Amino acid sequence: MTRHTILLTGFEPFEQEPLNPSWEAVRALDGWPCAGAHVAARQLPCVFGQALQVLEQLMEELKPALVICVGQAGGRSQMSLERVAINVDDARIADNAGRQPIDQPIRSGGPAAYFSTLPIKGMAKAMRAAGIPAEVSQTAGTFVCNHVFYGLMDRLAAHAPAVRGGFIHIPYIPSQAARHPGQPSLALETLVEGLRIALQSAMTLQQDVEEGGGQLH
Amino acid sequence: MTRHTILLTGFEPFEQEPLNPSWEAVRALDGWPCAGAHVAARQLPCVFGQALQVLEQLMEELKPALVICVGQAGGRSQMSLERVAINVDDARIADNAGRQPIDQPIRSGGPAAYFSTLPIKGMAKAMRAAGIPAEVSQTAGTFVCNHVFYGLMDRLAAHAPAVRGGFIHIPYIPSQAARHPGQPSLALETLVEGLRIALQSAMTLQQDVEEGGGQLH
Amino acid sequence: MTRHTILLTGFEPFEQEPLNPSWEAVRALDGWPCAGAHVAARQLPCVFGQALQVLEQLMEELKPALVICVGQAGGRSQMSLERVAINVDDARIADNAGRQPIDQPIRSGGPAAYFSTLPIKGMAKAMRAAGIPAEVSQTAGTFVCNHVFYGLMDRLAAHAPAVRGGFIHIPYIPSQAARHPGQPSLALETLVEGLRIALQSAMTLQQDVEEGGGQLH
Amino acid sequence: MTRHTILLTGFEPFEQEPLNPSWEAVRALDGWPCAGAHVAARQLPCVFGQALQVLEQLMEELKPALVICVGQAGGRSQMSLERVAINVDDARIADNAGRQPIDQPIRSGGPAAYFSTLPIKGMAKAMRAAGIPAEVSQTAGTFVCNHVFYGLMDRLAAHAPAVRGGFIHIPYIPSQAARHPGQPSLALETLVEGLRIALQSAMTLQQDVEEGGGQLH
Repeated sequence: MTRHTILLTGFEPFEQEPLNPSWEAVRALDGWPCAGAHVAARQLPCVFGQALQVLEQLMEELKPALVICVGQAGGRSQMSLERVAINVDDARIADNAGRQPIDQPIRSGGPAAYFSTLPIKGMAKAMRAAGIPAEVSQTAGTFVCNHVFYGLMDRLAAHAPAVRGGFIHIPYIPSQAARHPGQPSLALETLVEGLRIALQSAMTLQQDVEEGGGQLH
Repeated sequence: MTRHTILLTGFEPFEQEPLNPSWEAVRALDGWPCAGAHVAARQLPCVFGQALQVLEQLMEELKPALVICVGQAGGRSQMSLERVAINVDDARIADNAGRQPIDQPIRSGGPAAYFSTLPIKGMAKAMRAAGIPAEVSQTAGTFVCNHVFYGLMDRLAAHAPAVRGGFIHIPYIPSQAARHPGQPSLALETLVEGLRIALQSAMTLQQDVEEGGGQLH
Repeated sequence: MTRHTILLTGFEPFEQEPLNPSWEAVRALDGWPCAGAHVAARQLPCVFGQALQVLEQLMEELKPALVICVGQAGGRSQMSLERVAINVDDARIADNAGRQPIDQPIRSGGPAAYFSTLPIKGMAKAMRAAGIPAEVSQTAGTFVCNHVFYGLMDRLAAHAPAVRGGFIHIPYIPSQAARHPGQPSLALETLVEGLRIALQSAMTLQQDVEEGGGQLH
Repeated sequence: MTRHTILLTGFEPFEQEPLNPSWEAVRALDGWPCAGAHVAARQLPCVFGQALQVLEQLMEELKPALVICVGQAGGRSQMSLERVAINVDDARIADNAGRQPIDQPIRSGGPAAYFSTLPIKGMAKAMRAAGIPAEVSQTAGTFVCNHVFYGLMDRLAAHAPAVRGGFIHIPYIPSQAARHPGQPSLALETLVEGLRIALQSAMTLQQDVEEGGGQLH
């Protein structure tokens, strides 16, 4: 089977925000042709469990060649290529359905973690070369973003191990930072351009670049 | 005499940067008509003393109705409306001519400080209302930016007390942050739009808005 | 008249804190003999106006050889030797009497600012040499700390220009940081030791050290 | 077999530091009796591979009832109870033997991650209740600390699954922060007291406390 769709997801707004930059950025790329495939941009609910059900249905339906989920990381300065998803939900705030799990496994008996199968070093390098602030991140947190990232990798491992998948966290956009004094942000145009380069790298890099991207702690 | 020029200055690059976002943003507004005046965008050298000589010459020549100097504040997340300029040069790095003064007064015998005469609270409020991250800042540092800000206010106090003047610090643009891991940035378009609103507010607000903009420490 | 008292003030708690580390640190030094003088530790109310009245009364009564006021700077990592006090009250929160002035001068017609007359570079250097995190700070904020600092310098300028005065901001202590996730702190013992060195340097250094301590912005 | 030893390790200095606070804090507890056991404090080299060999030898020799490894996290404000160790070495700087692996697995074919088996929520809660700044952390980085943490959990999983193990990151001490302007620190006494409470909680809490300690991202 040849797969011709890139599934790119963003989230609905949460935590009283009027918008979610991940959805704004992602939907700007709906239909975009990239390396012989086309982007299908879809929105996920910011709800534990339900977000994964929607994602799995989309994967079933679209049979994507690549899956990248995108989420808001208010307070970060750069676009972050997440390295690892961990098997735990530990919510500081309630999700959009009012659920706030503490220290619950995402899949009981599942592995403790999955690494991204995206060429994250090469993606970050290409983004920076194009003037987009980007870094590899060692934690995707323990809220719905990590939940979706883990569920994605768990499903790919079971059903489509050759299909690359991963997660990108993005900062606020300026209109959000204008209401959160001191918080960094990036323009929507910068985010969309960054995602474009990320997708292209993820589709075309045969293997990842060997380049430092770790943290001392 | 009716004054029809808004003098808007940016700096040349310093500290090994290939560009200075203050100049990139400022020159995009050269000739822009604003509240019955026109913007004259000019570049200042990043050199103690010399920067002020150029500024004074420009003020002499252009007889501006408003003077706003803009400078790069690498590491800040927001556009900062500076509240106060202090009478001291204390340079952590050498300027572009290799000078690095420590604890030298900008003008011997001059007052310890000048407050901005811009309606900084109203400007920040208008910028935020338009979705631009903006704040009032209580320190412009002790490098060439503060030097120019102090010199500007000192000269206006002596020769043109009715003319408003002040200083705006701006973050890196994304291409700079891509080389400075973890640093925040704002797109050039965001900075230009922010300056446009700032200028308009500075030209049209009769008096400043009463709104908190201080810091506990 | 020979002056034999060092007036060292701390503040009462504010903003719902059970204690104020400035008062805890300061009172530990009450009676401490230093360079031929003795420390008189006194508490100031965290109230605009009233804090200055108490300070002035203490200065009248004690005729101090040196005055250092100390205040809490929750969120800072180091002990900060403040360089400059500015003539404005701009309160983000109400003081302990419920007052919240916005953009009010501390003394109408007073100078825009006063520089500390302490040898702040030499004090910071001595503190660091003893292993105490210390820096020169370019802003004391616009709340009651800056208010007291400005009022102190204003009074010294008028009545006792030969007497050195200034302000030191200190971080939370650990028990406070334990309730403010992510905030830095220093042990009370570290703060007391830092103040001891600061006082000694302020009493004995004939003139300040020439050493960089500025900020780019 | 009844196990009566708590193995508590710290690291030798690295990155040009004259000391490593993890070793200074740990060795202060050597011999300390805790919940029916005694602390054996040992130093690990800051070298990939070699650190794990030393650790395994110590575990073989001491048959500890509990193993907690401690490491320096310069830049953090609080004591961090690490939640998860990941199977990757990605070094931003060379270790003390000059090695700088990039994206190498710690154990080829090992699981992607291990969760700490310490009651980290309960430990953090007890520490905060005693006035010690403490938090749960979602990443131990990708340097020698994470390497040791992963190796420890890997070995415990294989050979002593009933023995609890985990990792605690600690901030600089003040004398280090005095040379790293702006960095937070905690006094050695605070760190030692924090470790004491951590050990006691790890030895006595039957199961972990249900309390939020996650991150949104």
